Amino acid sequence: MTNAYGYLGPAGTFCHEALLTVPDLPGHLRPYPSVVAALDAVRKDQIDAALVPIENNIEGGVSATLDNLTYGETLMIRSEVLLPVEFNLYVRPGTALSDVTRIVTHPHAYAQCREWVQTNLPGATVSEGGSTAAGAAEIADPNSRYHATICSQAAGELHDLEAVATAIADNKQAVTRFILVTKPGPPPERTGADKTTLVVFLRDDEAGALLRMLEQFASRGVNLSRIESRPSRLVRGHYSFSIDAEGHINDHRVAGALKGLKRTSRDVIFLGSYPRANGFRPQVPEGQSDDSYHAAEAWLKDLRQR
Amino acid sequence: MTNAYGYLGPAGTFCHEALLTVPDLPGHLRPYPSVVAALDAVRKDQIDAALVPIENNIEGGVSATLDNLTYGETLMIRSEVLLPVEFNLYVRPGTALSDVTRIVTHPHAYAQCREWVQTNLPGATVSEGGSTAAGAAEIADPNSRYHATICSQAAGELHDLEAVATAIADNKQAVTRFILVTKPGPPPERTGADKTTLVVFLRDDEAGALLRMLEQFASRGVNLSRIESRPSRLVRGHYSFSIDAEGHINDHRVAGALKGLKRTSRDVIFLGSYPRANGFRPQVPEGQSDDSYHAAEAWLKDLRQR
Amino acid sequence: MTNAYGYLGPAGTFCHEALLTVPDLPGHLRPYPSVVAALDAVRKDQIDAALVPIENNIEGGVSATLDNLTYGETLMIRSEVLLPVEFNLYVRPGTALSDVTRIVTHPHAYAQCREWVQTNLPGATVSEGGSTAAGAAEIADPNSRYHATICSQAAGELHDLEAVATAIADNKQAVTRFILVTKPGPPPERTGADKTTLVVFLRDDEAGALLRMLEQFASRGVNLSRIESRPSRLVRGHYSFSIDAEGHINDHRVAGALKGLKRTSRDVIFLGSYPRANGFRPQVPEGQSDDSYHAAEAWLKDLRQR
Amino acid sequence: MTNAYGYLGPAGTFCHEALLTVPDLPGHLRPYPSVVAALDAVRKDQIDAALVPIENNIEGGVSATLDNLTYGETLMIRSEVLLPVEFNLYVRPGTALSDVTRIVTHPHAYAQCREWVQTNLPGATVSEGGSTAAGAAEIADPNSRYHATICSQAAGELHDLEAVATAIADNKQAVTRFILVTKPGPPPERTGADKTTLVVFLRDDEAGALLRMLEQFASRGVNLSRIESRPSRLVRGHYSFSIDAEGHINDHRVAGALKGLKRTSRDVIFLGSYPRANGFRPQVPEGQSDDSYHAAEAWLKDLRQR
Repeated sequence: MTNAYGYLGPAGTFCHEALLTVPDLPGHLRPYPSVVAALDAVRKDQIDAALVPIENNIEGGVSATLDNLTYGETLMIRSEVLLPVEFNLYVRPGTALSDVTRIVTHPHAYAQCREWVQTNLPGATVSEGGSTAAGAAEIADPNSRYHATICSQAAGELHDLEAVATAIADNKQAVTRFILVTKPGPPPERTGADKTTLVVFLRDDEAGALLRMLEQFASRGVNLSRIESRPSRLVRGHYSFSIDAEGHINDHRVAGALKGLKRTSRDVIFLGSYPRANGFRPQVPEGQSDDSYHAAEAWLKDLRQR
Repeated sequence: MTNAYGYLGPAGTFCHEALLTVPDLPGHLRPYPSVVAALDAVRKDQIDAALVPIENNIEGGVSATLDNLTYGETLMIRSEVLLPVEFNLYVRPGTALSDVTRIVTHPHAYAQCREWVQTNLPGATVSEGGSTAAGAAEIADPNSRYHATICSQAAGELHDLEAVATAIADNKQAVTRFILVTKPGPPPERTGADKTTLVVFLRDDEAGALLRMLEQFASRGVNLSRIESRPSRLVRGHYSFSIDAEGHINDHRVAGALKGLKRTSRDVIFLGSYPRANGFRPQVPEGQSDDSYHAAEAWLKDLRQR
Repeated sequence: MTNAYGYLGPAGTFCHEALLTVPDLPGHLRPYPSVVAALDAVRKDQIDAALVPIENNIEGGVSATLDNLTYGETLMIRSEVLLPVEFNLYVRPGTALSDVTRIVTHPHAYAQCREWVQTNLPGATVSEGGSTAAGAAEIADPNSRYHATICSQAAGELHDLEAVATAIADNKQAVTRFILVTKPGPPPERTGADKTTLVVFLRDDEAGALLRMLEQFASRGVNLSRIESRPSRLVRGHYSFSIDAEGHINDHRVAGALKGLKRTSRDVIFLGSYPRANGFRPQVPEGQSDDSYHAAEAWLKDLRQR
Repeated sequence: MTNAYGYLGPAGTFCHEALLTVPDLPGHLRPYPSVVAALDAVRKDQIDAALVPIENNIEGGVSATLDNLTYGETLMIRSEVLLPVEFNLYVRPGTALSDVTRIVTHPHAYAQCREWVQTNLPGATVSEGGSTAAGAAEIADPNSRYHATICSQAAGELHDLEAVATAIADNKQAVTRFILVTKPGPPPERTGADKTTLVVFLRDDEAGALLRMLEQFASRGVNLSRIESRPSRLVRGHYSFSIDAEGHINDHRVAGALKGLKRTSRDVIFLGSYPRANGFRPQVPEGQSDDSYHAAEAWLKDLRQR
């Protein structure tokens, strides 16, 4: 054990902020310049786990995460973190809102606060930085030619900046999702509010192939909370699907779907079963509970032996 | 053991003829006046097995068979017999074809030979009997006012009649199907060319319910060779389905479908797995063989334990 | 117009009884010895319509009806009749129930009353006749060696017999179904409580083919009230399906399903849209009404022209 | 007409490079700081069209594109551009590869070239810029403290830089996809190698809802080349799907799927039918061609009128 976790840096990114909400953190938290660098550090035992973005991240990295988990040496997702996306406008202490004419921030952060900026700072120019954290670092520099940055509270406080406007995102509901990844091992215990992440490679491309893949879930009452087609690298024209399904590998209905997919698809990569961050417990449909599975198994055994 | 089998009589019916093709017959073959009587005799241990019609029978009984197996005390199908439907025109020895003006036979037998009769005996009248065997018995009576009957070779020979025309059915390809039924027990061994008969009661009636039931078969590559909706006696408006599926309860894909149906339907009645009379061996689709099931099971076990 | 309807005779059958419930009957009702004879009489303009059994008929004929409508010259179903199956025990006037030791009836009629007979007339023997009507005619003969027959009220009254026991069927709920068939023409007007009968020939036999056929119904919210696989005569191993679907050819959702089947199947035979005998009006699912179809059509037209 | 197109800037981005491959470009090409700014400029008639990323973009913006097209005032996709992702290492003229110790580039660009950098410049530090184009601009500045940038040929040449290493991406096959967007209007003509982009909002979340949505495509033989679930902004817990389907709104099978989705889903947003950049012509399945649709329509009309 290294007593260290990694994340997509630099310090002050949303990913960093998300990591700070994880319970039982180790002594060391290390920023990495890219998702791939963070995941490889896990594989090389340089850190015990890495937190990386998997959905709707402001600062990108989602494709890198999906691709690296799919095609790299196997890792396993242990938990997820949902982070409400909240932006503030930060300045060096002493700067007034009315003084702000030059802003630096990540383009996606600006994209999410455009209406506010155009309404409240109509004359301001906006320059782009590589991350919101880098923008905050820039503003912290007394010699910077910029007056303000759009970033999270974490980044602003890290650099001792002062918020002159808060909650300036145009969409107040935006949420971004991160996953904590370790080397493979037994999955976390089932909580009843779990999620299973996997990648499925289809055998062929015809119109019904996706439908038949989804029947493996639907016939067992397993809902999907996310599905994305991904161009497969192995064979041009073949598609793979990145999927989050409700439930845990130790739920019979999920295990049944996994086995069904394994048999009928070109390949399946299991990336982990872990507690849902929102604690949502799905209603297991009639006939899909573990008890129903046990009863059907017993019925069949009885038929064979009577 | 009673050393006796029963069948839908009287002697000389197609059912009787079909029974004579069954290997290893016991010493006694008993006719019963109805399918229900024959099946109840099995239940009461008066006979070891009964052969009854299940599909396309000339002399009826199919509904009675399906209903009695569904709602009566459980029995099990052990084998099936396919019988080509061949009709001859039988007379008392000495009668010429040109003398025939009054025919007696079962209405369904006549229905299948109408074109021949209208072409070859345009002036003849046809009267109805309760079975083709009863028609043959009538002709055998020297005092009968009828000249000829339409029946199988078995019935004609049983009553020492003479065929004045053979193979007179309008459709030369017709086949009728019978099943040999015993008390429940372990199913016959798997041959690779097997059939499984069951009844499924759906939970509801909406347009997708039948579709979802069939997904339990299709997602495991199990073909159906027969499906019939049956009005369920238990609840008005609910439908059940009588089904023949390819494969054996000891095939993993069939066992999986049975368990899936058991979980997701109102009820499933298993009526037996037995060799197909036509010896047809289905091509098991990719990913649906027992080996594929074992491989998927091992893969899942490994995921849980790594 | 011939001012005549035909039915599966002889007079006094359940089919005859069912015909008597049809409104606006013509002057002549003619019995035919078989379903095929009755249907051919329609084709030859010898009668305007024929009533024939299509489901659960006591006296058979269902397979003949389905096959002849499928493979014969096209006809069209105009209406259906449901007949509760009620059996009485009829004797010649003056015979007491306690005198009855020899019964004659159709084997299926006996099969449906076995429990009553075994309980109430445990010593009686039962002989088989070609129809319940023929059994009634036999009893009406003062020289008959039989004492009683099991038949419908219609048959009993036709032959001036006396009922010594009524409602003796073991299952009081049984219903049998008949259809009134004419030459092809515009279908009867839509009532909102309609049924459409058709035959679908699949292109292939693999496990998903039936599923995909049913998707044409389910994706348009069209329930099936009956489905039966039928061995196709044309190509060995190919199956066709005889189907009753909810709704009328002039309902957009039914028309859509018919066209979808026509495109994706080997062939479709339309046998008619007609009012349901039980008057059941299906709840049209959200998005499947004619209004929804019109709205979607208008939406698409607008997309193409904006 | 403004005689101007916009793109996700600044000049030299991959989006800019992609735009330069579009035929018949207008006189002015304007960079926008964000996808949203570019799309809004189209809506305000400040430019005739905008090229924005929709899949696998190095410099982000994909989520912004999907969200803005879904929730903003309606726009329409007119064509797509596929751009192979090729990275070079650019320096100020005169700098040798061996002199490079400080690199500035967009983090995603670095992520895609990590192996090459670690192998060939093991001692170099990498700093992050807001885009690859911004990195190139930085290097072009003679006072810059950085030695090199990773960017496209377009960006390097734009700033008169010199390539000291070419084709340094770890994955040589990566492709990114952009779409050219205009105000709504009649779709481009059908070419036989077309794609249709749409967003579908489901009515509910249960396991079969996605399956039933896909049946609208599969039952008409329409393949999907991309599907992504998107968290819907309108109702928490409801999902929408961003979809690319094979074919053109003027193909009967695609029009049928669109209408079917419109009827059975909560909402459908049509974003355009346009030629596929790769020119791939799908094989239309049997029964799904326009001719098959016309034949089925004629058949139905005939049934109603005979």
